[in-house]
Amino acid sequence: MKSVIPVKLPQQSYDIRIAPGGLDYLGPWLAAGSGPDLGPDSGPLVRPGQKLLLVSNPVVFKHYGKSAIASLEQAGYSVSPLILPAGERYKTMRSIEKIHNLAFEQRLERGSAMVALGGGVIGDMTGFAAATWLRGIAVIQVPTSLLAMVDAAIGGKTGVNHPQGKNLIGAFHQPKLVLIDPTVLATLPVREFRAGVSEVIKYGVIWDRPLFEALEAAPRFDRQRTVSDDLLQMMLTHSCQAKADVVAADEKEGGLRAILNYGHTVGHAVESLTGYRQVNHGEAVAIGMVAAGKIAEEMGLWEASAVQRQQVLIEKAALPTQLPAGLNIDNIAIALQSDKKVQAGKVRFVLPQQIGAAFVSDQVDPALVRQVLTQIQSA
Amino acid sequence: MKSVIPVKLPQQSYDIRIAPGGLDYLGPWLAAGSGPDLGPDSGPLVRPGQKLLLVSNPVVFKHYGKSAIASLEQAGYSVSPLILPAGERYKTMRSIEKIHNLAFEQRLERGSAMVALGGGVIGDMTGFAAATWLRGIAVIQVPTSLLAMVDAAIGGKTGVNHPQGKNLIGAFHQPKLVLIDPTVLATLPVREFRAGVSEVIKYGVIWDRPLFEALEAAPRFDRQRTVSDDLLQMMLTHSCQAKADVVAADEKEGGLRAILNYGHTVGHAVESLTGYRQVNHGEAVAIGMVAAGKIAEEMGLWEASAVQRQQVLIEKAALPTQLPAGLNIDNIAIALQSDKKVQAGKVRFVLPQQIGAAFVSDQVDPALVRQVLTQIQSA
Ligand SMILES: NC(=O)c1ccc[n+]([C@@H]2O[C@H](COP(=O)([O-])OP(=O)(O)OC[C@H]3O[C@@H](n4cnc5c(N)ncnc54)[C@H](O)[C@@H]3O)[C@@H](O)[C@H]2O)c1
Ligand SMILES: NC(=O)c1ccc[n+]([C@@H]2O[C@H](COP(=O)([O-])OP(=O)(O)OC[C@H]3O[C@@H](n4cnc5c(N)ncnc54)[C@H](O)[C@@H]3O)[C@@H](O)[C@H]2O)c1
Ligand SMILES: [Zn+2]
Ligand SMILES: [Zn+2]
Repeated sequence: MKSVIPVKLPQQSYDIRIAPGGLDYLGPWLAAGSGPDLGPDSGPLVRPGQKLLLVSNPVVFKHYGKSAIASLEQAGYSVSPLILPAGERYKTMRSIEKIHNLAFEQRLERGSAMVALGGGVIGDMTGFAAATWLRGIAVIQVPTSLLAMVDAAIGGKTGVNHPQGKNLIGAFHQPKLVLIDPTVLATLPVREFRAGVSEVIKYGVIWDRPLFEALEAAPRFDRQRTVSDDLLQMMLTHSCQAKADVVAADEKEGGLRAILNYGHTVGHAVESLTGYRQVNHGEAVAIGMVAAGKIAEEMGLWEASAVQRQQVLIEKAALPTQLPAGLNIDNIAIALQSDKKVQAGKVRFVLPQQIGAAFVSDQVDPALVRQVLTQIQSA
Repeated sequence: MKSVIPVKLPQQSYDIRIAPGGLDYLGPWLAAGSGPDLGPDSGPLVRPGQKLLLVSNPVVFKHYGKSAIASLEQAGYSVSPLILPAGERYKTMRSIEKIHNLAFEQRLERGSAMVALGGGVIGDMTGFAAATWLRGIAVIQVPTSLLAMVDAAIGGKTGVNHPQGKNLIGAFHQPKLVLIDPTVLATLPVREFRAGVSEVIKYGVIWDRPLFEALEAAPRFDRQRTVSDDLLQMMLTHSCQAKADVVAADEKEGGLRAILNYGHTVGHAVESLTGYRQVNHGEAVAIGMVAAGKIAEEMGLWEASAVQRQQVLIEKAALPTQLPAGLNIDNIAIALQSDKKVQAGKVRFVLPQQIGAAFVSDQVDPALVRQVLTQIQSA
């Protein structure tokens, strides 16, 4: 089972390759250089002999560093690994400095590349370091968390956190290749797996009805071993295709791309109010989807039965559907106002119209938001 | 006397406006929003009412800060000034952090902008800070040194220095407008003026024979008050047009843009070996142009009379034509090899073929380079 999904962009197109065991082909694929833009004689994505920085974190490197490096070295690359501490709190300019320092020491050239082997944190940082070294060198994304596979690694958003706000510092920088090896999910903590499933459900609601229906048909998907290889492949290919479609239509978030923020309006507020600890991103998005679904229902935009079907999927993923205990609704309202996507004081919500289609609205009555948040307060 | 030079790029085009006294129109022009991409109803370049960060240094701000801010505020913008210390050694990530901190404090939004009021150092830093805030907000370049007017402010290269190398960290980020008010050159130190003239001569040699001939016809141009308003306007318009032409043909330095490095191969080596102090950038480029001219002559590519005519212009600008005393030729050879533009170990030289045309060569014999460097050693 192997799938290649092209991401077609005006400036630079690239492939997402989804293949169990694909990590062992990382080197050969970089050297072989197929891709949507490339004819048969296009040459390698990165020239063999070139220097690569492979950026990872301790856990991921322990499991997969050796095979990744072996595959790259066998294909003729010279690889320098850099292991950064794990965790969102290290997604800072300080880590970018470390990557840049190694880039200097290794004398990376314009034709060199960086390889991100890890979750979204490693992917975002490595992408940003590559975007800003010599004004942009190649980056290869090898996402190892489900969330990074279906979301963070695709679309070229890169960056780090400012001490006072998430993802405020960054750049758009598209990868040359996204390589997804689903077998690495075996070692992912189950709560992280569910966080990724939350984004998969999101694609089903806003873009891909067959994906939604496949999830409905599946007996379970609350942990890796409950998911068949076929279902996992479907979740990955459909989610990646959805993100690729949206990104291709709107590379730099002028319009359509905003629908990817479904569930993220309330989600971000919940994350930030719980200090990015108690509730993880995927859990917050799950709660946010429940809220947005109910808002759409109350506004007469989405039918009650669809809202209920979404609720069932979220529960099947063992994701939360209620606000964490103790969260004050006034504080959520304030946090919504200070989101960086607020334009001219209007909070923007993504609202489903049917399963597989959604739109952006800045016309949601704040009183309705409060009413819905009250409905989903935990008892 | 007023000129508008469009820079036409696939993604975002913009105007360079050259107008004596233009600083007073900064606000109105941002609000009026003409530009090569824009139809009559296109709306403002930055929406009035928006927040602007104006980044400058103490000297430049003292002279021109007040008029710039007045013009922007009268047009309805809300301006926060940020004054960074002057000098290349402050072109660091630490300064970018300061800009980002103010961007956070002032709650800049996607529609906000940064304005660079200063020389190339301020321009490069402000451009990079804007490129990386919220993954890219608008930047307006208001260059105040001759070098920044004819070179740094145009073309979208932005960045800062790495502790161990110049301009290693950066991004491409095109401005929304470049506003050049030649009257501000009155206060520029004369040595800085000459550094800019060095780049003007460069454009004459590699791209624009009429510019070269106008310089030949002028009695003097070794300091501001020896240059007529007409000649200055010609120097600015032709140089900006040359850079705009080259950048439009090759936005991200894939090929043609490399000719802008005429004089810079040896120039960079001289700068770095003299610790970026004894010899400034323009002076180093002047020496580099002499070297490259002689190399082209020795290779039979450029006629001796043209090499001599170039020499005369450089002397007329009171720029150096010989290596600084005490510089060791072995060290220059080593520095050439470690330049970031070296590809696969080959040093690239830009060589003139005639006045107004040049090309890039990696076929220059290192022995010839040494021979020419020996010729231009100071007695
Ligand atoms: N660039 C984008 O478009 C985009 C989109 C969404 C999220 N993000 C960013 O992504 C980050 C979140 O990504 P994430 O959820 O992957 O977080 P993460 O990178 O912190 O990974 C989650 C945890 O899983 C571990 N892990 C990852 N893969 C593993 C594996 N195969 N085996 C064992 N452990 C593994 C990591 O060490 C980490 O502890 C955030 O910083 C977010 O801002 C970016
Ligand atoms: N981005 C690019 O494409 C590009 C191209 C060339 C150079 N650069 C960069 O530009 C920088 C050099 O630019 P620069 O030569 O303008 O240096 P600079 O910015 O340091 O300015 C030179 C000096 O002139 C002063 N100054 C500037 N305008 C003045 C005025 N009107 N009145 C009085 N004093 C004034 C400054 O305070 C400074 O002391 C370097 O960092 C270089 O890397 C960038
Ligand atoms: Zn998300
Ligand atoms: Zn220069």
